[in-house]
Amino acid sequence: MSQARKPYQTGLCKTAANFTALSPLGFIERAASVYPEHIAVIHGSLQRNWRDTYTRSRRLASALQRHGVTAGDTVAVMLPNIPAMVECHFGVPMSGAVLNTLNTRLDPEAIAFMLQHGEARVLITDREFSFTIAPALALLPAPPLVIDVDDAEYDGPGERLGQMEYEDFLAGGDPEFAWQLPADEWDAIALNYTSGTTGNPKGVVYHHRGAYLNAISNIVDWGMPHHAIYLWTLPMFHCNGWCFPWTVAANVGTNVCLRRVDPRLIFELIKQHKVSHYCGAPIVHTMLINAPAECKQGITHPVNCLVAGAAPPSAVIEGMEKLGFNITHVYGLTETYGPAAVCAKQPAWQELDLSSRTERNGRQGVRYTMQHGMTVLDPETMQEVPHDGETMGEIMFRGNLVMKGYLKNEAATAEALAGDWFHTGDLAVIQPDGYVKIKDRSKDVIISGGENISSLEVEDVLCRFPDVIAAAVVALPDPKWGEVPCAFIELREGVSGDEAAVIEHCRAHLARFKVPKRIIFGPIARTSTGKIQKFLLRQQTRASSAIE
Amino acid sequence: MSQARKPYQTGLCKTAANFTALSPLGFIERAASVYPEHIAVIHGSLQRNWRDTYTRSRRLASALQRHGVTAGDTVAVMLPNIPAMVECHFGVPMSGAVLNTLNTRLDPEAIAFMLQHGEARVLITDREFSFTIAPALALLPAPPLVIDVDDAEYDGPGERLGQMEYEDFLAGGDPEFAWQLPADEWDAIALNYTSGTTGNPKGVVYHHRGAYLNAISNIVDWGMPHHAIYLWTLPMFHCNGWCFPWTVAANVGTNVCLRRVDPRLIFELIKQHKVSHYCGAPIVHTMLINAPAECKQGITHPVNCLVAGAAPPSAVIEGMEKLGFNITHVYGLTETYGPAAVCAKQPAWQELDLSSRTERNGRQGVRYTMQHGMTVLDPETMQEVPHDGETMGEIMFRGNLVMKGYLKNEAATAEALAGDWFHTGDLAVIQPDGYVKIKDRSKDVIISGGENISSLEVEDVLCRFPDVIAAAVVALPDPKWGEVPCAFIELREGVSGDEAAVIEHCRAHLARFKVPKRIIFGPIARTSTGKIQKFLLRQQTRASSAIE
Repeated sequence: MSQARKPYQTGLCKTAANFTALSPLGFIERAASVYPEHIAVIHGSLQRNWRDTYTRSRRLASALQRHGVTAGDTVAVMLPNIPAMVECHFGVPMSGAVLNTLNTRLDPEAIAFMLQHGEARVLITDREFSFTIAPALALLPAPPLVIDVDDAEYDGPGERLGQMEYEDFLAGGDPEFAWQLPADEWDAIALNYTSGTTGNPKGVVYHHRGAYLNAISNIVDWGMPHHAIYLWTLPMFHCNGWCFPWTVAANVGTNVCLRRVDPRLIFELIKQHKVSHYCGAPIVHTMLINAPAECKQGITHPVNCLVAGAAPPSAVIEGMEKLGFNITHVYGLTETYGPAAVCAKQPAWQELDLSSRTERNGRQGVRYTMQHGMTVLDPETMQEVPHDGETMGEIMFRGNLVMKGYLKNEAATAEALAGDWFHTGDLAVIQPDGYVKIKDRSKDVIISGGENISSLEVEDVLCRFPDVIAAAVVALPDPKWGEVPCAFIELREGVSGDEAAVIEHCRAHLARFKVPKRIIFGPIARTSTGKIQKFLLRQQTRASSAIE
Repeated sequence: MSQARKPYQTGLCKTAANFTALSPLGFIERAASVYPEHIAVIHGSLQRNWRDTYTRSRRLASALQRHGVTAGDTVAVMLPNIPAMVECHFGVPMSGAVLNTLNTRLDPEAIAFMLQHGEARVLITDREFSFTIAPALALLPAPPLVIDVDDAEYDGPGERLGQMEYEDFLAGGDPEFAWQLPADEWDAIALNYTSGTTGNPKGVVYHHRGAYLNAISNIVDWGMPHHAIYLWTLPMFHCNGWCFPWTVAANVGTNVCLRRVDPRLIFELIKQHKVSHYCGAPIVHTMLINAPAECKQGITHPVNCLVAGAAPPSAVIEGMEKLGFNITHVYGLTETYGPAAVCAKQPAWQELDLSSRTERNGRQGVRYTMQHGMTVLDPETMQEVPHDGETMGEIMFRGNLVMKGYLKNEAATAEALAGDWFHTGDLAVIQPDGYVKIKDRSKDVIISGGENISSLEVEDVLCRFPDVIAAAVVALPDPKWGEVPCAFIELREGVSGDEAAVIEHCRAHLARFKVPKRIIFGPIARTSTGKIQKFLLRQQTRASSAIE
C-alpha cells in the first residue's frame, strides 16, 4: 500500500522554537553567561573577562545604532590585534552592520578605495595608522564617522583624527543593548578585500552561516580542547583572523593580544600566559625558528600552531617540529573564510622519519570537516584529475565555507563560482592518498622547453640552503627555452650570497631543467600582507633581461 | 550621504558552489576518504574500517531504493548496538528515507503501533527480537518488507522472519551508489517515538540540520579529541544514540559495539580497546560502580563518560569520580536530539571538596554551544524565573536542536512549541550562577501541606543510603496533608531493608516534611527504556491506601 502523500510533508514547520539563524554572535553571549569571570582578552597588563567583553560589544553595537548605523551598513576598522578589534567582531554585526577589517599595511589610496567601494559609514581606527588614514580620508568626497582607538599599550606617534575616542563612544552605548540575530543566516557579516597584486581589490562578502560553521570547524579540525589560550600572531584583518575571534568565543578561550609580530615578545607571551594555540603565515614561524636560542628556553607546556597563507616551505614544518611545537598545515583563501582545508594528520605518520613526515604534513590536504568539497579539477572539462600525484589541475572548493560573492562585482563572482565550484587559481595534484598538493599559482608556473616547473618546488629546495630566509622563483624570458627559472633569495642579515654553492645545492635536489639559471640576492618585494610580489620580480627580470 | 539601497542586497546569491544542505551524511564520506583504513566499528572479533563501512552504507541505500524506497519513506529498524545499526544511520537517510529506530524492549502492540503510525515500508530487525516482531507483524494489515540481521555475535534463540537476510540485501546494492544530500536541510532524517508512560507514543521528527549540529555540538561541548574510541553502552535507539553515530563519523573515531549492557564485558572492552568515551543513563554508571572490584583493575588510560536520561543521583557522579572516570552530566529529551544542555565544568570546581563538586556537576547546567537557548520560565507568564535557586518554573529550550515536531500530531506539536519555546515538562530552578537544576517532572512533584516536595531531592538522599540500587518517591494520598512522600527502594541482592534506619537517614538529611512516610522495599517497575514508571507506583500506593 503506497502513500501518495508522505507523512513528513505536513505540520512540521519552522518556528522560533525550533529554528534559529546560525550566527557566531551567540558564542559570546554563551561565553559571558556560562563563564563570566573567565579571561577573554589579555593585552599587556590588561585582563578583561567574558562578561565585560560582551558588555563592551553590546555597548559598541548600541552606540553604532545611535549614530545612525542600520542593518546592512558597512563599518570599517583599521586596527591591530587589540581588544577593540575582538569587540568589533561582535559589536559591529550585533548592530546589524557588516564588519570591514582593513589591512593596516596598505597605502592611503587603497584604503580610500575600500572605504568608498564598501560605502563605510563608520571607521574605527588606531592612532598608529593616522599617517595612512588621514590622507585616505582626504581622498573621500564623503568621509565616514571616524572613531579613534587610543590604545594605552601604544605610545608611538600618530594623531587622533576623528570625532570621538573609542572608550567615549562605548560609554554612550547601552550595556544591556538587546541585539538581534540576523533576519537570515545568509545575511552578510563581514567584508574582506583581497590584497590584489594587480588592479583594484575585490570585496569578499561573508555570511553569518559561514562564519559560524568555519569558527566551529576550526575547533573540530584542530581538535581544540576547551579554554585555549590563543595568541594573536595572525592579523585579525586577514579573513577575520581565519574566523578565530569567533572560534575563541565558542571555545571560551582567551585572546592574547599582540600589536606587532616580534619573536622575542611572542616567546615571552607564550611562556607567561601558557599560550596553547596560535596561527600564522610561514614567515611568522620562520621568525620563531630563527629567533635567538635563549628566547626558546623554558617552554614546558604543549604549543599548537597552524600555518597557512602561503604554501609552507618544508624548512618551516621541520623547524617547528624541532622546536617541539605541534604544527598543522591548513589551506584556504579569503574567499573560503580562511582555512577550509587541513593536512589532516595520519597516526601512521608518527612512524616516519622527520623528512618524510614533513613532506606529508606540508600538503594542502583535504577539506575541512564542515566544508562540503575540495578537489582538483581540470578547469576546461571540470573533471577531477586522477589521484596520481602527477596530473595538474586547479584546486576548487564548494560548500558553506565559500563566500557569498564579491561586493558589487557580479561578473567576478560569476567567474569565481563558475560550474558550481569556487576556483582558487591554485594549481595542484591529487596524491594517491587523496591529499591535495599545490604545485603553483596558475600564473606562477614556469614553462621551460614545454615542461612545467613549479616555482614552489624550486623555492622549497632553496629554503633548505643555509641562511636563506626567503626565496622566490619566477620565469625569466629565454630565447631558447621560452622561460627559465630565476631565483630571488633573501639571506639572514650579515651573510653574503654564494651563487655557485646555491646552484650546486639545487642540482643535488632538482632535475636539471628546474635549476635556476640566475640567482639574485637581496630583499624581496612583498605586498602589504607579506605575500611576495612575483609580478614585481617578473618586471625586474624582464627589465634586466631587456638591458642585457 | 545615506544609500537607499544597501550594497549587500544584490548579486550575492546562493549557488551550488557556496551553499550546501547541512547533513551528517557528509561526515562518513569524509571519514572514508581521509581515513579509509581507520577502524570504524569493532564488534566481537570483527573490525571494519571507514572505507568498508561507507561502502556498506551506500549498498544499503542503493538496495533500499531498488526495493522501492523513495524520499520521505520510513525505514524502521529493531536492532541492538551492532555494525548494521551504525550503517542504518547513514544508509537509510542516503536512500532519502527517514530512519525510525525502535526500542527493542517494547511489546508487540507498541511496535505494531509505531510501524503503522510511521508508515514504515521496510523493517530491518535482529533475530533476537523475533519474539516481539513476529506478533507485531501479525497485527499489521500491510506489513513492511522485512530484512533480518543474523548477527554472527548472537547465538541465542530467535527466527528469521523476513524475505531476506541483511548481508544478502546489501549484496544487491551498488557499492558506488551516488547518494544525494537532502533537497532541504529541514528534511526529516529520523523518527523517534517517545516511550510514553501513558497513551500512545508520539513520533518525534528530526531534520538533517539538527542532526548535523547536535553531532558537532557533542564534539565541541565534550571537548572530544580526534579519533575517540567510543563504546556503545547507550542504545542507538534512544534519540539516535544522542546523535553519536554521526558524531563518531565526524570525529573519525571508532564505534565499539555492544549487544547488551554487562558491566564485566564493558570493563573488558574498555581495557582491550582503550575505550576513551561512552555515554549512558545513571543506571549504566551505577552498574559499573557496583561491579566487582577485580573488573576495574588495570585501566591506565583516561575514560570520559556522559550521563543523562534521568537526573543522576549524586552517588553516581561521586562514584564515577572515585572510579577515576571523567564524568560530565548532559541533559535533554528525545525532542532535543538527546543532549542539548551540559553541566559545563568550571575550572574553579577542581578546588572544591568531592561533595561540593558533585553537587555542582550534578546539575542540568547550561545550553549546548549549538543550541540557541535554555532557560526556566514560569509556564503561565513565560517570564524567566529569578536566578535564586528557589523559584520553580519549567525548563524550556529553543534553537536548532529542537525537533521539527511530532509526526501527524499538529495539536501536540503546537502545544509542545507554544510561545516559541519547547516545553520540557521538567520543573527546575536557576541557581545564582545561571545553571539550571531540575527539581522534578511537573507531574512528579509532591504537594504536602501546601509545600512542594521534589521527589528527586528525596530520591537523591535515599540513594546515598548503603546498598540502595535505586529509589523512587511518589505522592501517597493523605487525609491530613493532601499528599505525603512514599518511597520505593530497590536494594542490592541479598540485602534486606531496614525501614527505621532509612527513615533515620532521611531525617538527618531532609526537612521533616520531606521524609517519606512509607517505605516499600522491592524491585521497582520500569519502562522498556529503563525509566522508572512512577504512574504504576502511584497506582500501587493508591490501591494500598484504598485497602487500608
